This record gives sequence, structure tokens and C-alpha cells, in this order.
Amino acid sequence: MSREINKDTQLCMSLSGRPGNFGTRFHNYLYQALDLNFVYKAFTTQDIEAAVKGVRALGIRGCAVSMPFKEACIPFLDELDPSATAIQSVNTIVNDDGFLRAYNTDYIAVAKLLDSHKVPRDAVFALRGSGGMGKAVVAAIRDAGFKTGYIIARNEANGRALAEEYGYEWKADVDDLAVDMVVNVTPIGMAGGPEADSLAFASDVIDRASIVFDVVALPVETPLIRYGREHGKKVITGAEVAALQAVEQFVLYTGKRPSDELIEAAATHARS
Amino acid sequence: MSREINKDTQLCMSLSGRPGNFGTRFHNYLYQALDLNFVYKAFTTQDIEAAVKGVRALGIRGCAVSMPFKEACIPFLDELDPSATAIQSVNTIVNDDGFLRAYNTDYIAVAKLLDSHKVPRDAVFALRGSGGMGKAVVAAIRDAGFKTGYIIARNEANGRALAEEYGYEWKADVDDLAVDMVVNVTPIGMAGGPEADSLAFASDVIDRASIVFDVVALPVETPLIRYGREHGKKVITGAEVAALQAVEQFVLYTGKRPSDELIEAAATHARS
Repeated sequence: MSREINKDTQLCMSLSGRPGNFGTRFHNYLYQALDLNFVYKAFTTQDIEAAVKGVRALGIRGCAVSMPFKEACIPFLDELDPSATAIQSVNTIVNDDGFLRAYNTDYIAVAKLLDSHKVPRDAVFALRGSGGMGKAVVAAIRDAGFKTGYIIARNEANGRALAEEYGYEWKADVDDLAVDMVVNVTPIGMAGGPEADSLAFASDVIDRASIVFDVVALPVETPLIRYGREHGKKVITGAEVAALQAVEQFVLYTGKRPSDELIEAAATHARS
Repeated sequence: MSREINKDTQLCMSLSGRPGNFGTRFHNYLYQALDLNFVYKAFTTQDIEAAVKGVRALGIRGCAVSMPFKEACIPFLDELDPSATAIQSVNTIVNDDGFLRAYNTDYIAVAKLLDSHKVPRDAVFALRGSGGMGKAVVAAIRDAGFKTGYIIARNEANGRALAEEYGYEWKADVDDLAVDMVVNVTPIGMAGGPEADSLAFASDVIDRASIVFDVVALPVETPLIRYGREHGKKVITGAEVAALQAVEQFVLYTGKRPSDELIEAAATHARS
């Protein structure tokens, strides 16, 4: 850090069950590059109520929220932005003089990526997964105007609930459905996970699609993304989602939007 | 900062009505010099209960407490060290895995300075002032074994209460008392204050004493300290108290005791 911390430095932070280094290194890199008087640090807690009330009482400017606190924090906030209301899940808290307004920048990032990658709204999608991130992605897809799609989940109860909430159809597997976009929101392909080397969709399903979207952010090139690239598909990566949602948090906390080059440099630094 | 903040970095902080820069710059300087994975920042709050509970819930390692929170924080702590019990006033909270133990390092610093300056215990003292810091100093003096002394305060109720609590005598002024040590715990001589150029004791009182002790830390050389130095008195300065109490906090938070040279460098840096 080139800038020395002083009494006017604003703290931003994260709350998660298992803190990582990405957010801390990403935000601090950008603060330094843009000469902003901010500092960022990851925290965990055993007491989400006291932690959120502490954010308010200490004037901590912003707080990223990860599993398992995304829903548990809601009772202690003052207002939900539509991005959080859409899925009743919060990943970002902004503190304006003690008033806590909450957002979901995963939802915002997915919506923006569907736009910037010019995904046609008549594309039929198959989304595999039914966890918390699944909700953010399905809601963003629905709100972007996609009419037809399938929620693929082995767990029928979870899959059906997610599909019905957003007006899509549940299927246990893709089988021979004709889909234009495959979307993975399971941990399949995640570095260090039990299925790190697996494709989240069967190769013939990917072959029939034109768009491949993976929310797994590590590695940057998952098996699914690599297969999609090698076969000339349009790809949207989890690394893009992770970086863009962090940028949206950065903008909410600081009011500054870094250049694409700087964001790329910060993300590369944070992953290194 | 040469060390990059990461998920394992420990946060220490301060809570005060009007945060200054001394603690932040002092502690961060030492963290850097000793290559400790800590970061320090000053905070204020409108809600001391939520702030202290937030310290616990967020795993913030240490918290310095200043006016007006030194007594108000006590109900939310788990245990008081004897240094805090002695005056029912806290200036340091240490968080061990959610257990908050509180100390008063002003008391500890004054006790250590009376030792290191080898102030004879049969010295008769006159202490001017009756605020919160007065209590820390009188308690340390009493516990160090000083038998005879006077609390000098224009406010008779406050002065008598402080004197009687610790077994000394209240006087409205020093007049022609024979005292060996004068102790100032009022804001007289403080930079920027209404009495910045005033001597906290009449010159003839100082002339008769052999020890001059001022808890005013800014400027380093108050009118009282300057007068004492010029007249060959043993002096104990507020800058020494401020630095030593901060060192004691540093030791409680980190388990490391910096060298005297490093402390001096950190204090000089923090005042600059």
C-alpha cells in the first residue's frame, strides 16, 4: 500500500463462513491504483446479528456477504435493493451514515453479462444446479426476458421449487432437449472439488448449444469453458461473474468505476 | 505498508468520540517495522453496545477505548483486568476468540513511569484535575505506595470525591503547601486549547518541587514541562504516558514488545 491508513480511511469488508483472499486483494489493489482512502479486509463470524449491527455501529462503509449469511443477514438490514428482493438473498451491504441498504451484485453481474455478451433473448437455456447462486442466475435470466428454459437438478424438490418460482420447467437431466445455452451453477469443474475434471453437461448437449455459461470462477478455464471455447461457442465465465460482481460492489462502496484494464489487473493480482 | 492485507490479517482499532491519527499511525508503523500481519484503524460510534458486540462478533483482535466510552463499554465486556477494576474505566479491550478482557493501560503506563523514573515513594504530591484521566493517575500513584498527597480541583465535589476515594486530601489550590511532585491532569498547556500557554501550577510551587509530571501529550514540551526542565526538575511527560500506554496495548494485542528505539520512532512518526 502506498497510502498510509489514517483516521479518515474507510473500511470495507466481507463476511463469509470461510474467508478467502480474492476480495481483500482485489479491492485493496484497486484502492491503491485509484489512490482511494479505503482499506478492505475479510472477516467471519459466529453471530451474524452482532456482526451486521457492528457494521452499522462502527461506520464500516461496505460489507460483502457470502455463504452462509446471505439470507440470515436480512432481518438486520434497513432496505433491500430490487436486486436483493428478487431472490431474497444479499451479497452486498452499503452503509450510509448508519442506514444499511443491501444488494445482490451476483444478480446484477449476470444481468450485465447477458447484455454485454448479446445473448439472444429467445435462446432456450438449460441451467444445472439449485443452490443459492442458482437463484441469482435464474432470476437474472428471467428478468432479462428469457421465456423458455429448464432447471436441471437431480434433487427434484429443490429443482421443481426453483423452476416454478421463476416460471421454468424442471428436468432431472437434459437428455435430448434442444437447448441454445447451457448454464452451470453446480460445483462441477471447480478446482480442488471432487468433480474438478468433469464436464457439467454431456458433450453432445454442449455440441447442440451455441452459448456456454459457467459460474465456477476457479479455475478461470473450467472443463466446461474449455470445451466450449474449443468448439467455437460463445462463453461467459465464472471469472467474469466474480470480477464484475466485485466491481459492482466497488462502485457501490466508492462511487468510482475502474477501467476494464484495471479490473483485469486487479482480478489477476487477486487470483495470483 | 509493505505487507499486503490478506484474509489472515488481524484488525485492531480504536473507539473514541473524536478519532485522531496517533494510534492508527503508531500501531501501523510498528506492525510494518516488525512485519506483523495486523492493521489498525480508528473508529467512532453512536452505539457503544453494538460497537463492542461487533468487535466480539467480527473477531477484531483489540480495541482502544477513549472518551466518552471508557465507562460506557463496561457492561458489554466479559472480564476486567485489575488495572481497569482499580478505576472502573477501560481504555483497552483484548478479544481472545470472542472473550473480551479489558485493561486500563493509562494506569499501567503511569505505574511503570513512576518506577522507571525512580520517583521516591515518600514524595508528597499535588495533582491538579479531577477528570477520567485523573482517576487513572491517582489510582496508580496510590497503588505505587505514595502516602501523602493533595487533589487540587476548583470543583469541590469532584475534587473531594476523587481525593476521598483514594485516601488523599482535597484542596481548592496549592497555596503554600510543601509538595515534592506536581502532577497535571487538566488540559492546561494543551496545544490548541484555551490555556495552551499557561503553567498548570504557579511557578513558586514548581520551584519548591523536585518532580514535574504532566499528562498533556501535545505539545511534547508543555509550558509546565519546559519550566520543569529549565529549572532542573525530574520530568515525566504526557508524551511518555501516551507512548507507553500505546506500547502496553501493542503488547496485549500482538504479544510483541518493540525496542525503545522503535517505540520512539513510531511515536515521532505518529506525531508528525
